[in-house]
This record gives sequence, C-alpha cells and structure tokens, in this order.
Amino acid sequence: MTEPTYDILGIGNAIVDVVARAEDSFLSRHDMHKGAMILIDAPTADSIYAAMPPGQESSGGSAANTCAVAAGLGAKVAYIGKVADDQLGAAFRHDIKAVGVHFPTAPLSGGAPTARCLILVTPDGQRTMNTFLGACVTLGEADVDPALVAASAVTYLEGYLFDPPEAQAAFRKAATAAHAAGRRVALSLSDAFCVNRHRAAFLDLVANHVDILFANETEITALYERNTFEEAAEAARKDIALAALTRSEAGSLIIQGTETVKIAAQPTKVVDTTGAGDAYAAGFLAGLTAGKPLAVCGQMGSIAASEIISHYGARPETDLRRLMPA
Amino acid sequence: MTEPTYDILGIGNAIVDVVARAEDSFLSRHDMHKGAMILIDAPTADSIYAAMPPGQESSGGSAANTCAVAAGLGAKVAYIGKVADDQLGAAFRHDIKAVGVHFPTAPLSGGAPTARCLILVTPDGQRTMNTFLGACVTLGEADVDPALVAASAVTYLEGYLFDPPEAQAAFRKAATAAHAAGRRVALSLSDAFCVNRHRAAFLDLVANHVDILFANETEITALYERNTFEEAAEAARKDIALAALTRSEAGSLIIQGTETVKIAAQPTKVVDTTGAGDAYAAGFLAGLTAGKPLAVCGQMGSIAASEIISHYGARPETDLRRLMPA
Repeated sequence: MTEPTYDILGIGNAIVDVVARAEDSFLSRHDMHKGAMILIDAPTADSIYAAMPPGQESSGGSAANTCAVAAGLGAKVAYIGKVADDQLGAAFRHDIKAVGVHFPTAPLSGGAPTARCLILVTPDGQRTMNTFLGACVTLGEADVDPALVAASAVTYLEGYLFDPPEAQAAFRKAATAAHAAGRRVALSLSDAFCVNRHRAAFLDLVANHVDILFANETEITALYERNTFEEAAEAARKDIALAALTRSEAGSLIIQGTETVKIAAQPTKVVDTTGAGDAYAAGFLAGLTAGKPLAVCGQMGSIAASEIISHYGARPETDLRRLMPA
Repeated sequence: MTEPTYDILGIGNAIVDVVARAEDSFLSRHDMHKGAMILIDAPTADSIYAAMPPGQESSGGSAANTCAVAAGLGAKVAYIGKVADDQLGAAFRHDIKAVGVHFPTAPLSGGAPTARCLILVTPDGQRTMNTFLGACVTLGEADVDPALVAASAVTYLEGYLFDPPEAQAAFRKAATAAHAAGRRVALSLSDAFCVNRHRAAFLDLVANHVDILFANETEITALYERNTFEEAAEAARKDIALAALTRSEAGSLIIQGTETVKIAAQPTKVVDTTGAGDAYAAGFLAGLTAGKPLAVCGQMGSIAASEIISHYGARPETDLRRLMPA
C-alpha cells in the first residue's frame, strides 16, 4: 500500500453558518428544539432569517469544520462538498483553502444557492440549527473521485450527508473506494434527530462499512435504542472496530475491541457549542493518522473541542498546535 | 418645528466587513499601513482576499455601525446607503433592519456587487482596512429624500462618503435639507488618510455646513495641519459649534464654545478596535438627542466604544442599555 497523500478526506454538506445570539423565547416562538438541527426549505429559511437578530456569516458544515480544525493541527486534508457559484460559495471556498485544505469539488452553476445554516446561540451556549440545504442536494457520486479517496488514510463522512438523497450514493461510493484501497472509513452520527431519520441505514453502515465511529451520548443511545449510555457503548463495542463517544463535560470514551480509554473533558468557559463534536473528531483523527496512542488522540480531541466552544463560531481562533500535548 | 420622527439619520457607504486575524508580517508583505483604510479596486480585492486567512462576514460601514449602536441604545434611527441586490447586500439589509433601523435605499441591480471591507486584525487589536467600494459608488443625490432628512433631528455623515464622487452631492443635498428644516448636521472625519485626500472640502464643510464634528486625534491634527492635539482642538473650537474629539485610552474632549468637558476612557481589554469611533459617535448622539448633558453624552460614547473594542466586530454583542448611566 502506498503512503497516503492526505491524512483525512472529509465529505459533507458545504454550508455557510449565519450565527446570531437569541433568547430562549425566540426558539419557542419559532417551534425550535434547542440543540437540534432541522432541515428547512427556502421559504422557511427566508422567514426565520427575517425574524432573526443580526448575524455573522462564516464557513461551516460539520465535516468541513473537522477538516479546517485538522488542517490547523498540521494534518494533510482534502474536502468534498457542494457550494453554488455565488458570494457565500466563494467565501466557503476561500475559507477552507485558506487553512490549507484541498477542495476540488466544482461549484453548482445556475441552481440553488449555497447552503445556509441559521444558528441561534442561546445564553447557555447551546446552538439550535436550521439548515437550508440549497446546492448541497446536488452533491452526488460524480463528485467522489475514487483516486482521491484511495490517496487518503481516512475518509470521514458526516451523518448529515444522509439527508440529501443523492449524497447517500456518494457516501457508499466513497466507502467502497476507501476499503478497496485498504484505507479506513470514519463516520460521525452528527445529530440524534438525524439518526432517527436514517436509523436503519446507519445501523447497516456502522456494522458493515465503517471503521471509526464518532457519536455523542444522545446519538449513540438513539442509534442502538438503549436507555443508558453504558448499554449503547457496549452495543457499539460489538459492532465497530473503533468508537469515540463524547459526553460533553463528562469527557469521552474510546472503545476498541476489549480496550476502553476514558478521556477527561478540557475545562473551559462555554460560549457557543457549535462545532464541538466536529473539533473533537478533528483532534482525534489528526492524532490517529499521526500514529498517536488512543489516549493522546482523545486528549487532542478534547483540547480542540474546548478551544472551539470558548468563542462564537465553529472554526479555531488560535493556533491549535500550541495547545496540544508534545 | 415639528417633533422629529428619527433622532439620527446616518448616511454612509454600505459595506460588508470580512474580518480575519493576521500577523504584522501579513500587513508588511501586502504594503498595508497599519490602522488605516485604503480604497482598492476589484482585482486588488480579489488578490488580497485570496491571500487572507479565513474570514467572518458581518455588516459594517462606519455610519451604519453608528446607526446600529444608536438603535441598540434606544434611539430612533434611519440609514441611507447603497448595497447591491446580492447575497451580501441581503445580509446587510437584514442586519440593519433587525436592530430596528429604517433603511429605505433601493439596492443597485445589475451593477457592481455590494461593497466589501477586508479587515486584518493584528494581535495588538488594531484593524487595517482595505475597501472595495462596489455598489457604494452609485449612491447619489437621488437616494437622499429631503423629507426623511427634515424628519431627523441629526443627519450624521461619515467622511468616507467623500471617496465615491457621487456621494459628495448626496452629502451636500442632505446638509442643505437638514438646515432648511432647522435640524443639525454631524460629520465624522473617519480617517486621517481620508482627511488628507479631501482636506479643502472638509475645511469648507466643517466651517460652513456642519454643527457637530467627531474626530480622533490624528484626524483633527490632519484637518487643521497642527503639530499638537491641543492646537488642533483650539482650531476646532473656533470653527465649529460642537466637537467631540477622541483620544483612545486617553478618553475624549468635548468642546462647545467656551465650554470644555473631559471624558475618561472606559477601561476594557482591547480585542479589535474596528468600529470604536463609530460606537462613540452613536453613544454621544443617542445621549444628545435624548437631551442629556454633554458630560453624559461623552460618557455614553465611551461606554459604547468600550463594548465594541472588547470583541471582534463593529456591532454590539450585549444589550448596551444595561451598561449606560441611569
């Protein structure tokens, strides 16, 4: 097997975040479930946006955030995702290229605009997300270059990719190409509501096509329909080669065969939890592809997540390498 | 004279800021003068943007920032400025309307895109600005509704308006309409380089058409070509009815006829000075139009500025009214 050109290839929904601060009453007035991501159509996006406080636009997308953080940690990273050829798409492209991520996907021309996620951050730091998928729904098999997948040590897929129907085919094509080349496939479950929307497909994937799973407590219990984290974690142990399960301030649990590694959370002041899971996966995979032991991988994930939640926005504001263990 | 509908009508360049953190070496590599605003054409904007770190987009524009802060302080505010009918223009319109500012100006269709200001924030908190004026250059006399000017207690003009040539006519039309209705005209000098570009016009305006002047130390010494702040302040006293002169951490000086009021700066940790002067003018004018004494107006300006410089971005992140004197 040849040396990979990239440590991580992320595939996901290419989204620009519009972040605004809001009171809890705004969420209830607009029937939003705090902490969740829901999909909205264009008219709903327009009406929520019209009601929202002033926002700040910045590049987002779960796997894209992971790619940006991993690149900031020195990993060699590529990304596949679909923007439109509009102003927000240009900003997305600029931002991911500016951190050194290879981004070969052609933009969509003459169709839907670049995807937007309207994010309301409440005073407790929780983010509630309303995603208009726009151009993302046209990401398909043709956008996945098997040579790029084969040249990447880990292909990382976000669970949200199961929402736009064409992307599921892209997802399966990437997983097949990765395994054919002897590479690994990682999956993030993304969101408990997303798991509930696609449970059967996720269960099949996790058991048969995924080598590394990222999930938080609500996602893993939703996937296996268990009442406790411990039961769900044991189900994951039987199902998957390597799982990194996050529990917010309770840290994370890494499970690999009979091995279990407990990682403490990195204490920090929580300003905005947007991107916490994405950053954890980035730190973990940057460590893993650099050959670090699991305990160090988990610690790198925790430190990266703590930087992201200490400020607004899902991309790092400091040089993450300085925060990492030697 | 009828009661004004608006306390403040701002007229300025409607700009979306693209803010990125950068080292001092980035400024020197790109021949940028730290702390200054320069005008750039479209190709230069593209080449600087391509070299810039990842950015966050948010609504800016000097007078528009002032309007947003003043509205946040409870003032009744309107704004005139030209965006294009593109994604960034829609974000600008959303953000200023979301804080309650009346924004009647029709967007430009089929011409230049919405103006962008590429802002590099260095580790010392200073911002260096590169402005591509885009749609702003089409703001002209036709955009100034004399009835709106007449309905506003203070018409506030940013000095940057003298850069796009058509805007000078809009500027003069607004000043004439304001005085014809017995209202006041305020001017911010905006930037020492801007003053140097248009000194003769500014000297004429200040002496003959402006009632309230905002300037910082370098701007006021540039306007009157004096060596010291004290000499420049005395020149301003002879020239203008009311001047509020800011000196960063040394506070501000308010001059009205023989009266002089010294205001201390509000201590804070400086993260990003973008919008400090805009916020000072907002606090000052919100106080003035609410009938507060000059010392309170200056204090309101200082407090508003201190909130703005304590975080990235030129718009408030907290409820400013809670910070104000009773």
